[in-house]
Amino acid sequence: MRTVIGVDLGGTNIVSAVVNERGKILGKDKRPTLAHLGAKDVMLRIADSARSASHKSGIPWASHLGVGIGSPGPLSQKRGVVLYTPNLNWKNVHLVDFLQKELKKRVYLENDANAAALGESWVGAGKDETVVLCVTLGTGVGGGIILNGRIFEGATGVSNHIGHIVVDPNGPKTPYGNRGILEQYASTTGIARLAKEIRLKPLPGQPADARTFEEMALKGNRKAKKVYEIAGKMLGIGMVSAIHLVNPSVVIFSGGVSKAGDMLFKPMRKILEERCFKSHLKGLKFRLAKLGDNMGAVGAARVAWLHLPSSVKNKR
Amino acid sequence: MRTVIGVDLGGTNIVSAVVNERGKILGKDKRPTLAHLGAKDVMLRIADSARSASHKSGIPWASHLGVGIGSPGPLSQKRGVVLYTPNLNWKNVHLVDFLQKELKKRVYLENDANAAALGESWVGAGKDETVVLCVTLGTGVGGGIILNGRIFEGATGVSNHIGHIVVDPNGPKTPYGNRGILEQYASTTGIARLAKEIRLKPLPGQPADARTFEEMALKGNRKAKKVYEIAGKMLGIGMVSAIHLVNPSVVIFSGGVSKAGDMLFKPMRKILEERCFKSHLKGLKFRLAKLGDNMGAVGAARVAWLHLPSSVKNKR
Repeated sequence: MRTVIGVDLGGTNIVSAVVNERGKILGKDKRPTLAHLGAKDVMLRIADSARSASHKSGIPWASHLGVGIGSPGPLSQKRGVVLYTPNLNWKNVHLVDFLQKELKKRVYLENDANAAALGESWVGAGKDETVVLCVTLGTGVGGGIILNGRIFEGATGVSNHIGHIVVDPNGPKTPYGNRGILEQYASTTGIARLAKEIRLKPLPGQPADARTFEEMALKGNRKAKKVYEIAGKMLGIGMVSAIHLVNPSVVIFSGGVSKAGDMLFKPMRKILEERCFKSHLKGLKFRLAKLGDNMGAVGAARVAWLHLPSSVKNKR
Repeated sequence: MRTVIGVDLGGTNIVSAVVNERGKILGKDKRPTLAHLGAKDVMLRIADSARSASHKSGIPWASHLGVGIGSPGPLSQKRGVVLYTPNLNWKNVHLVDFLQKELKKRVYLENDANAAALGESWVGAGKDETVVLCVTLGTGVGGGIILNGRIFEGATGVSNHIGHIVVDPNGPKTPYGNRGILEQYASTTGIARLAKEIRLKPLPGQPADARTFEEMALKGNRKAKKVYEIAGKMLGIGMVSAIHLVNPSVVIFSGGVSKAGDMLFKPMRKILEERCFKSHLKGLKFRLAKLGDNMGAVGAARVAWLHLPSSVKNKR
């Protein structure tokens, strides 16, 4: 049995999985990241998590051909370094070197959003599709573009920042100078912002967050429904731009805000039908991600499979 | 000497060129399209133009290995059919079949904007670049994305519609249902529309078109300068979205409106510097197209070079 280990390093959790060549998970570990412990301890936790996934799979450690890891960025893939990531408070962390020494395996690094998109394209909602556009509606809005099973990296590895598409040039300012970007509407942060803007307040004792407002909307609260309608419309505007530029065969949504379902996606579809060329909607599928919280780890495993030298993959 | 013929079919002119494997033009013909004559006569004019380019090159007809042709779309590349094109008033024209019979050569069809982008990437302003985003600011706004020397076609061949990026969700309506798209600001049509919007009138006896307004702006007319400033800003907004999504290594501008130079590009740059992540602007080049009106024909020739079977290319 040939296997690799895929690791999804998140701000909250580390998920590791032993994955075979067909994308099947044979063992899994999930543990809190505990980012406050600092880079070195988090890296040791990653190594422990990988070992634990291996242990649970019952497959001998020596059988794993390599390790793929998806990390928040920006990264230097070439040097195997996480340059900077606010979630973890990391700066210039030599993640690949550390893990190679610790695990005695080849380690391959990829941006977390790209890895997740690759996972869904490999064995999830984007299987057998040619041009996959993944859109994660989480704390922020991130994305990944997969072309014929390979990550589209752009010229310098920073493509797919779909959350930074301008949907209203006069919209609110972001901390980084842009205005009215998709992320300010269709993320959990965006939902909270919109609620504040239209003076929607949570019920007493509830936090003013997307989950609360989603529940309120589902129960029929008019203002809460309005928040999701605006978010859906703005998501639609952003998708019009992305679809005309990239012409995907499937768009895959994931992340907390995507759970709102029709409240969000109906107004999005309406905008798309009003504004897109028919040629761009023809045959275009919209799906929810299938792999749940395994998305990143499975994708990271695929990164390892794609990068392992064939001499290693074909060794008997 | 191995050569192919590249043909650029436009609403106004047909340009044909004999092109060698290194992108050098060895003979060229340019003649009016005369679209009013109808599809069949225009196709005969294309064939004549190709023969004339060959004649001027002094290279025997038999030496040309194939023909590439860039046509306005939408097309079916597979069937070699121009499905529909308002410029020429064509519907379901079997261009490839016709030319193969007429010219007795293999013929390869490509979208005109993609072909032009490929030409610039091959031997023009995008030479040796990994991710090239071409933006044509003409009657409309079109584009092409070239990845490592190959056209990015999207899932169904309709990617790169950069003119349809939404730059103002509440902007003016287009005939096809969208609103506030880049094309309504940064094309010749857009310039004329903006002029009307702010009540800029041409000098007596001058047409109310982009060329007139450009001249007025260059001579210091305040309102005309304002028109180009708005167009440049909106071009900036559209480019912010495109750059975050595609992460190009170079953006190449062509088309009539791009001749306005700094009047247009200064406000664009200002928006980009205000709104883009530094990581997305780092190393990113902005250039004007180099190949002039040969862009499409050279790109169409490259299409032929890329599609010719190696058995044909390597025949001695």
